[in-house]
Amino acid sequence: MELVGEFFGTAVLILLGDGVVAGVLLEKSKAKDGGWITITTAWALAVCFGVLVAKTLGSPGAHLNPAVTLSVCIQSGDFSIFLPYSLAQVSGAALGAFLVYLHYLPHWKETKDPGKILAVFSTEPAIKHTLSNVISEGFGTFLLILGIHAIFSPANGGANGIAGTGFVALLVWAIGLSMGGTTGYAINPARDLGPRIIHSIVPIPNKGNSGWKYAWLPVVVPLVGAGIAAVVIRWGM
Amino acid sequence: MELVGEFFGTAVLILLGDGVVAGVLLEKSKAKDGGWITITTAWALAVCFGVLVAKTLGSPGAHLNPAVTLSVCIQSGDFSIFLPYSLAQVSGAALGAFLVYLHYLPHWKETKDPGKILAVFSTEPAIKHTLSNVISEGFGTFLLILGIHAIFSPANGGANGIAGTGFVALLVWAIGLSMGGTTGYAINPARDLGPRIIHSIVPIPNKGNSGWKYAWLPVVVPLVGAGIAAVVIRWGM
Amino acid sequence: MELVGEFFGTAVLILLGDGVVAGVLLEKSKAKDGGWITITTAWALAVCFGVLVAKTLGSPGAHLNPAVTLSVCIQSGDFSIFLPYSLAQVSGAALGAFLVYLHYLPHWKETKDPGKILAVFSTEPAIKHTLSNVISEGFGTFLLILGIHAIFSPANGGANGIAGTGFVALLVWAIGLSMGGTTGYAINPARDLGPRIIHSIVPIPNKGNSGWKYAWLPVVVPLVGAGIAAVVIRWGM
Amino acid sequence: MELVGEFFGTAVLILLGDGVVAGVLLEKSKAKDGGWITITTAWALAVCFGVLVAKTLGSPGAHLNPAVTLSVCIQSGDFSIFLPYSLAQVSGAALGAFLVYLHYLPHWKETKDPGKILAVFSTEPAIKHTLSNVISEGFGTFLLILGIHAIFSPANGGANGIAGTGFVALLVWAIGLSMGGTTGYAINPARDLGPRIIHSIVPIPNKGNSGWKYAWLPVVVPLVGAGIAAVVIRWGM
Repeated sequence: MELVGEFFGTAVLILLGDGVVAGVLLEKSKAKDGGWITITTAWALAVCFGVLVAKTLGSPGAHLNPAVTLSVCIQSGDFSIFLPYSLAQVSGAALGAFLVYLHYLPHWKETKDPGKILAVFSTEPAIKHTLSNVISEGFGTFLLILGIHAIFSPANGGANGIAGTGFVALLVWAIGLSMGGTTGYAINPARDLGPRIIHSIVPIPNKGNSGWKYAWLPVVVPLVGAGIAAVVIRWGM
Repeated sequence: MELVGEFFGTAVLILLGDGVVAGVLLEKSKAKDGGWITITTAWALAVCFGVLVAKTLGSPGAHLNPAVTLSVCIQSGDFSIFLPYSLAQVSGAALGAFLVYLHYLPHWKETKDPGKILAVFSTEPAIKHTLSNVISEGFGTFLLILGIHAIFSPANGGANGIAGTGFVALLVWAIGLSMGGTTGYAINPARDLGPRIIHSIVPIPNKGNSGWKYAWLPVVVPLVGAGIAAVVIRWGM
Repeated sequence: MELVGEFFGTAVLILLGDGVVAGVLLEKSKAKDGGWITITTAWALAVCFGVLVAKTLGSPGAHLNPAVTLSVCIQSGDFSIFLPYSLAQVSGAALGAFLVYLHYLPHWKETKDPGKILAVFSTEPAIKHTLSNVISEGFGTFLLILGIHAIFSPANGGANGIAGTGFVALLVWAIGLSMGGTTGYAINPARDLGPRIIHSIVPIPNKGNSGWKYAWLPVVVPLVGAGIAAVVIRWGM
Repeated sequence: MELVGEFFGTAVLILLGDGVVAGVLLEKSKAKDGGWITITTAWALAVCFGVLVAKTLGSPGAHLNPAVTLSVCIQSGDFSIFLPYSLAQVSGAALGAFLVYLHYLPHWKETKDPGKILAVFSTEPAIKHTLSNVISEGFGTFLLILGIHAIFSPANGGANGIAGTGFVALLVWAIGLSMGGTTGYAINPARDLGPRIIHSIVPIPNKGNSGWKYAWLPVVVPLVGAGIAAVVIRWGM
């Protein structure tokens, strides 16, 4: 049941998250040029409803993100869920990206810029600079894990139930608004890898390459950033 | 009493929802060119206050949408409310659209584009492509029903009372931001049909046709999408 | 104590509300051209903090608006508070507008358009058309009173305490976004009259007339709209 | 423990707060030209997560701001925490600004305007005019302290736990939207001084001077404004 929740929850996350990027970037969309506030608001809500769907379908943790799963594993000391959860999350993200492909079907051939087409699916840095991109994704994911820990900390008592989900959405809103300008805040290996696989498969007239040279970074770095955060939380706080 | 609530609740939904489209599209409005974030935020709040008014006037379910009513019927197995509720909702939507017509009265003749005038009332696809438009409205309504189910699921315990209404508004915000760029997210037969009837009746200098060739789609497809979602929820979850 | 709360609560309402209009319209402001979403979001928050301050200072009703006070009088049958409350509200609004004048002091002489200068203080219709302007202000205030009634209705149980204040702010956000494009949503005689008096007094290089020919409308019409709403609520619901 | 919380909480505040300014102002950022709504929304969320982190790390007051600490000292009559808290806050703010420097590393040399580079770190007035700038920062901080007092006042019962933190974020959103257009709403000596020190140290190709001639004002005036507010609250309310 947990894997079903992770699979469909991540699918909803990406349907709504990649969906807003499609809406803002693809030609002739009514949301065209909606700007950064539109993109970041929708990604925050994408997390909210991805989490609610995942919980409803049987995954009370609602990670939707291998980096979150890894941090939970480090804090609990039990790594048995890491691989199956990650697989469910990446597969769900791929499903979500395929649904976005279908949802915006007639808009693809109107759009000539391969960079915009790839951006609907996966992240690319504004400026390619490996060390800096590592720092950006690392900082973002570190703050994601620290922020989730803070939201549910007894010191902030009161974030039980659906209010806690709301604050996790606010956290992703904050990270997107303030730290997303550099690498597009993947901060989630599944969010980046699943849709990139779909980008490489689906037929789109003007698509370019799928950016595989960069693809390792938003997979590896969020895991490292989340791992460091989990170590700090477990032994340092 | 339920029908009174559905009637006036849907009227408030459309007064606020079609109202923001008028504000953003009609010439000389102070909200002119407010953008997608303005339109989607207001539609989310339109749902919030439509629901609160409907509940206050005696409809505790506060559907405001024949697709929601159909999904409730399928889940309960009792279809007796479907027709009266739908009639109240479509009539209420028509009243709401007429109030928008009155509210923005001197702005109509300033506006020369018949497409914008129709867009205040009812939806039109950004790109006419029947299969794709069916997919968009179907996906959107499916997610609406699934999301409502998730919000009130015991697994997300805590969305009772007015907080639940707030999260339904967030759900509509998410669907609008992320999936509205293609067909304008009718996801509600009453929201589309009632105002289209008013568009065809009221005297507006530069109005074109009322888009009746497309009108069946945002009536039929949301019902199908909601029906499928209800079947999945009842027998699959 | 109630009058102290109404006075300072309305001052905070106008400091924040007229403040955002100054920020978006006056030359060289960092918020210049922030758009309709900026203006309406800040007005919603202005209501939120005006109400919280009024309650803290001893006015548990926190009306901040003669139209709200009138509707309370009609529902209770006791009109004794109407005049003193209204006087406190208009005076508080005047204080708030004077604080905005001071806050943006060096920006006035940079701004050459008398229409923008007046708009910081008080409302003017986008298109002067008395009947339509009456309809707009009347609809807006009617919905304000109906919405407040719905928020605190037992049918929506759960809006006690600070959450209720939050939903009132959401209501004003909705009215502003969807209905404000025509007359600028005064929907409050104090909000319009107090600042207009200050506009007519303070020295501003490029200010024009204070729009007194229109000034009766946003005073009288909100009272009528609120009165009708209160009658409907008391005897019709 | 309190000082650890103040240090890292303020670091998070500035990482997210200065981060959004970097995202909106620096060249080639994906958030470029996001506008005032983007900046103010992110600063509100920066306060939210700065506070949550500070509380989690052992500072239940979560001031993050020497002006807030001073107002607490005046209300309690005990000034012993003022200096250590302020030092932790300014140091934490410096750390946060250094993290922003690292996060946006390749974007600095793309940006030629020294005014924009300084604006990422610290505030500068839109129009230099000492008396007016004093009024703006004084009003803003006075309202910050009054608003926090109102949020947690028993008269608004219900803002316990994480909801109270949410309303403090809304308060900062309101002050930013409505009053930030003049001086950029420092309203916090640590928020301005810590990052200015970092600006003067880090190597940035096109940076100009660090605005030290203005630097006293956003340090001294928020303390005075908060002090006056605290006196009013303690003896006047």
